[in-house]
Amino acid sequence: MPTVTFLPRNIQATVASGAALLDAGLAAGLTIVAPCGGEGVCGECRVRIAAGTVEEEPSGALSPAELAAGWVLACHSRVTGDVTVHVPEPSEEGARIVTDTAPDARPSATEPAGPHEPLVARKCIVVEPPSLENSFSDLDRLCRALRRTAGFSPTQLTCGLGVLRSLAAALRAAEGRVFVTVAQPNEDTPAEILRVEPVEQAVSLPSPSQAGQPAPPSATNGHPGQVHGQGARATLGLAVDIGTTTCAVQLVNLDSGHVVDTACEYNGQVSRGLDVISRINYAKIPARREELRSLVLRTLNGLIEQLCRAQGLEGARIACATVVGNTTMIHLLLGLDPEYIRLEPYTPTANRWPVLRAREVGLSPALDPEGCVVFAPGVGSYVGGDITAGLLRTALASDSSEVRLFLDIGTNGEIVLGNRDWLMACACSAGPAFEGSGIRCGMRAAKGAIERVRLDHATGQAAFAVVGGAKPRGICGSGMIDLLAELWATKRLEPSGRFNPARCGALLRPAGPATRDLAYVAAPGALTESGQDLVITESDIQNLLRTKAAVYSACAVLLAHAGLTTKDLTQVYVAGGFGRFLDLRKSILIGMLPDLPLDCFTYLGNSALAGAREMLLQRDARRKVHELANRVTYLELNVVPSYMAEYTAAMFLPHTDLGRFPTARLFSGG
Amino acid sequence: MPTVTFLPRNIQATVASGAALLDAGLAAGLTIVAPCGGEGVCGECRVRIAAGTVEEEPSGALSPAELAAGWVLACHSRVTGDVTVHVPEPSEEGARIVTDTAPDARPSATEPAGPHEPLVARKCIVVEPPSLENSFSDLDRLCRALRRTAGFSPTQLTCGLGVLRSLAAALRAAEGRVFVTVAQPNEDTPAEILRVEPVEQAVSLPSPSQAGQPAPPSATNGHPGQVHGQGARATLGLAVDIGTTTCAVQLVNLDSGHVVDTACEYNGQVSRGLDVISRINYAKIPARREELRSLVLRTLNGLIEQLCRAQGLEGARIACATVVGNTTMIHLLLGLDPEYIRLEPYTPTANRWPVLRAREVGLSPALDPEGCVVFAPGVGSYVGGDITAGLLRTALASDSSEVRLFLDIGTNGEIVLGNRDWLMACACSAGPAFEGSGIRCGMRAAKGAIERVRLDHATGQAAFAVVGGAKPRGICGSGMIDLLAELWATKRLEPSGRFNPARCGALLRPAGPATRDLAYVAAPGALTESGQDLVITESDIQNLLRTKAAVYSACAVLLAHAGLTTKDLTQVYVAGGFGRFLDLRKSILIGMLPDLPLDCFTYLGNSALAGAREMLLQRDARRKVHELANRVTYLELNVVPSYMAEYTAAMFLPHTDLGRFPTARLFSGG
Repeated sequence: MPTVTFLPRNIQATVASGAALLDAGLAAGLTIVAPCGGEGVCGECRVRIAAGTVEEEPSGALSPAELAAGWVLACHSRVTGDVTVHVPEPSEEGARIVTDTAPDARPSATEPAGPHEPLVARKCIVVEPPSLENSFSDLDRLCRALRRTAGFSPTQLTCGLGVLRSLAAALRAAEGRVFVTVAQPNEDTPAEILRVEPVEQAVSLPSPSQAGQPAPPSATNGHPGQVHGQGARATLGLAVDIGTTTCAVQLVNLDSGHVVDTACEYNGQVSRGLDVISRINYAKIPARREELRSLVLRTLNGLIEQLCRAQGLEGARIACATVVGNTTMIHLLLGLDPEYIRLEPYTPTANRWPVLRAREVGLSPALDPEGCVVFAPGVGSYVGGDITAGLLRTALASDSSEVRLFLDIGTNGEIVLGNRDWLMACACSAGPAFEGSGIRCGMRAAKGAIERVRLDHATGQAAFAVVGGAKPRGICGSGMIDLLAELWATKRLEPSGRFNPARCGALLRPAGPATRDLAYVAAPGALTESGQDLVITESDIQNLLRTKAAVYSACAVLLAHAGLTTKDLTQVYVAGGFGRFLDLRKSILIGMLPDLPLDCFTYLGNSALAGAREMLLQRDARRKVHELANRVTYLELNVVPSYMAEYTAAMFLPHTDLGRFPTARLFSGG
Repeated sequence: MPTVTFLPRNIQATVASGAALLDAGLAAGLTIVAPCGGEGVCGECRVRIAAGTVEEEPSGALSPAELAAGWVLACHSRVTGDVTVHVPEPSEEGARIVTDTAPDARPSATEPAGPHEPLVARKCIVVEPPSLENSFSDLDRLCRALRRTAGFSPTQLTCGLGVLRSLAAALRAAEGRVFVTVAQPNEDTPAEILRVEPVEQAVSLPSPSQAGQPAPPSATNGHPGQVHGQGARATLGLAVDIGTTTCAVQLVNLDSGHVVDTACEYNGQVSRGLDVISRINYAKIPARREELRSLVLRTLNGLIEQLCRAQGLEGARIACATVVGNTTMIHLLLGLDPEYIRLEPYTPTANRWPVLRAREVGLSPALDPEGCVVFAPGVGSYVGGDITAGLLRTALASDSSEVRLFLDIGTNGEIVLGNRDWLMACACSAGPAFEGSGIRCGMRAAKGAIERVRLDHATGQAAFAVVGGAKPRGICGSGMIDLLAELWATKRLEPSGRFNPARCGALLRPAGPATRDLAYVAAPGALTESGQDLVITESDIQNLLRTKAAVYSACAVLLAHAGLTTKDLTQVYVAGGFGRFLDLRKSILIGMLPDLPLDCFTYLGNSALAGAREMLLQRDARRKVHELANRVTYLELNVVPSYMAEYTAAMFLPHTDLGRFPTARLFSGG
């Protein structure tokens, strides 16, 4: 069978003759981005043949010059013999994140102070001995003791056969002092006793890894019938955010509430389409649904195993998981047909998800196979559980009459507006540009990403900050916003998104041999890891404009639909995969965010992941996320006549109507 | 390896050298009763060596004469080479029941008329199509339609991944007309949607077997949104009663509520002890607990497969099961340590049981492995779910102030007294005599059992009725009560239980060559299947007296404890494994039942099995059985000082105090 070698990382895969190059990349563990789902339309999966040949199917996505230069589409090339291909940087997988993308990864003072009632709790309690007077069964006495325990309020309690089998001995081994592990998914599901261990035995267990966290306090905490053991192994939970472009997984110590570690990676499905619609189209055939399911599972399980390895965890140590994601992503994770999400009247199979077992979902063996997996409920086909979970991080979920706005800018943009009395949401197709996808030198906010940019007003040369302090490898979302704002503020970019060649000077060049596209050099090859210039092209800028216009116009339409204006907003939350920080002033300058005082804004980073963590830790959050899902009213933008006009008007820097951007007007001299 | 041949059935087993003969019997599929659990004490597992030899361990249970005649204890004999043994009839397994033991097996006019809400229901409903106005998810619309369905009132609904995966297609295949299969175990467990099938598809399924029952009605029944399909395969459920001596399994059509078939068999555990205490003692070692578990599972699964074979059912056709049994039997079925049931303060692991899956319990593959298994809750260590289920068949569960008595006479006797305001229960060790165990010619109420007896007053010769009209093979419970009453009423038996040789004449003989025990010939060998006389011995009679005395004295103590007398009772229910019928007058004559007018009595047969069937068919029964378990107060007879005196006084025919049995006094001429 032929061997395919992928440069520059020199990774090899042996595949059957006739296999698509795209699949060979997948086999090699590389994620080659294919936005159109392998239709041969977008040209994004282009790779360059370095040695050998492939059999090409015709497609119109590459120019004759590109074809002559050895470029082929990975989706339209079949392997016929040994071949070596060069995969351009932006498509390359393997960029491990250095630190999380936003403040949410750190336990912070702003962490909502809900009562600590984790999804799986390990409690140390004392169960009264039986007597002729108190002749309740072992299970009844255990349940009574649990019900007296602080921070535990289930209406219903159940247990499996394993617990029943161990119960009599466990209650009698240490005079009724036991650790009880209980799962409490939500109000609709009975709490389940997962394990009962006598205290001495649990204490004497080796605790090779306490998952990097301090052991629970050893003193009693004053609750009657409740004591704390020492040295017990931490109970671990997993928060999972499945984005269309990026997946994030966070390991959490459920006893202490601390984050142990976080990992992110591109969703393996990006090789089968960049946005939800192309994924849905790809998934029409059942075998492809199964393929998409295993692709995202491969990504998630890879991340989970990476986290476990780093902590030295062995066996099924993770007790449970909360999962958030847009409605399509959850359908694909569960192997459901997403077709009806795309077709009017846009009907998902479900918005609320039953509590499933880790083995059913197919999550890593690092999770207890019987461990519960709780999903955040969605609002509808285009406002999913990632948004309701994200809302948990905002005051929109609070008892306040002030009107607030929540923007989650991922590959889909979702916007929620409202207060305690009403909540309204809409969704727009933002595209993955800010996550580094579909942009020539774009990348995730991983090591080597340019995350901040300032241009010298006179020379136009960029000073930049790079994630991890390394040589730059690409530009992440926050860097692109900076670059766009700086180019425009220094008049190197027209409001239309075209370069002003006179102002740009020598830093502006043709984007390639066979294109009229222009590229501005953000980092010259001398400074970069690959030795190649890092540039932003006019077509990149059009991509970014489309994203920011989609987001801004959705906000505007939603506000207008509610009969409000920007001035009625007391707070705006911005979430998304831009990077570790977001320059809000520059986000206003490019016309992505409404022009409000900076202190109105809060940048949340990955609020979906943070919401998933809250669901892991707080029973109240698990209740509230359902309440939020029920309360939000969805507005379908496609049926709002003004949306297209708003969108078109927003395709300029900052906007056609400068009156809406008084701050920006100062820069534009308007 | 040596081969053991068991006569008279000529069944062979090849076992390892050194194996106990008892285990060889088990390997051959025979159940050799060993009341003492293999301790070599009771002598009940005696078999006679017909050819070859075995290695005998010493035991005091057999007389020198018996040993000389070739009798050995199966539990204390090891196989060392090929051997042929003769197993006496009463111990022999394999007597398949002809028809059920009591009226409860037939759907009758007295069947309680609770609403038909089976444990697993298959409903045909119409789910509205989605629209832009009604944008609920598929699952939400399905749940709404279900909630509008008559006879269905769950507060919570859940479903598994399989249902989610099939849902979108199923709802769109036949314009929303679907069969939905839903499990509704109890109030504490969310109802679970098990399957959704489009109507046309379900209708076009071949229905080779409709389990002997008519298809559900094809007309709509007037409930909005509910239609009935034709030709759908019946939804089947299983009622299971695990007795200490006898197991019974009933297959029920959940759609129609009809009983399909019933099967009974000795509990395979009888080879490991005849009563719960000897089973608990045997179960001290974990490996033996596992052995007891597989023994009862072998019995149950054999019965289930027998029922399925008879109906031509293939695959996992049974959707669910309800299981009733005394507390020890449920512990042993589930592999729990029963030790603390036996030790003061008599604490079971649980009285209420979680809803389990068929695969967890280990039930036959004829059940859906994920099918739910619902257990009747018990009151305590000695009043189990068989009693609470049985109470469902009585007016003790009704809203009446009249005081009633419920007696379930199995290997354990349990008695419940009370009305709508209070319920009180006690338990006594009755022994398996009435189930045919521990009695020389005793047998279950299966084909060949003498079930009715009348003695000629002058000659003492018995006229009898035999189950199945065959030649008699033994005497079942109802036959023994008849025989006892007739022997006493014709003055052939003294009140002490000793024969009056003068009255008995030639029908009385020595019970064996090496014993002073006497035997009365009930059926001469000329009339019996084996050609051997069927007799009742004085030691049999002592056994029967112990049983009836335990039951009657428990009733008397319970009444006295409540400050009542027999006269305060308006109704007495008698349940147990006596046979298809019970002569109540004769049961009073022998002093087992209190002397009340016959129209106060109702014979229920196997009320535990009937209660399990009610739990299969009526949601209200599943609720009520929990309410009953909570309401019953348990009285421990061992701590009641008067119990021993009552018991001793009841060891006579009919009783020491003839004033309590005015009816009987007429016969005794007292």
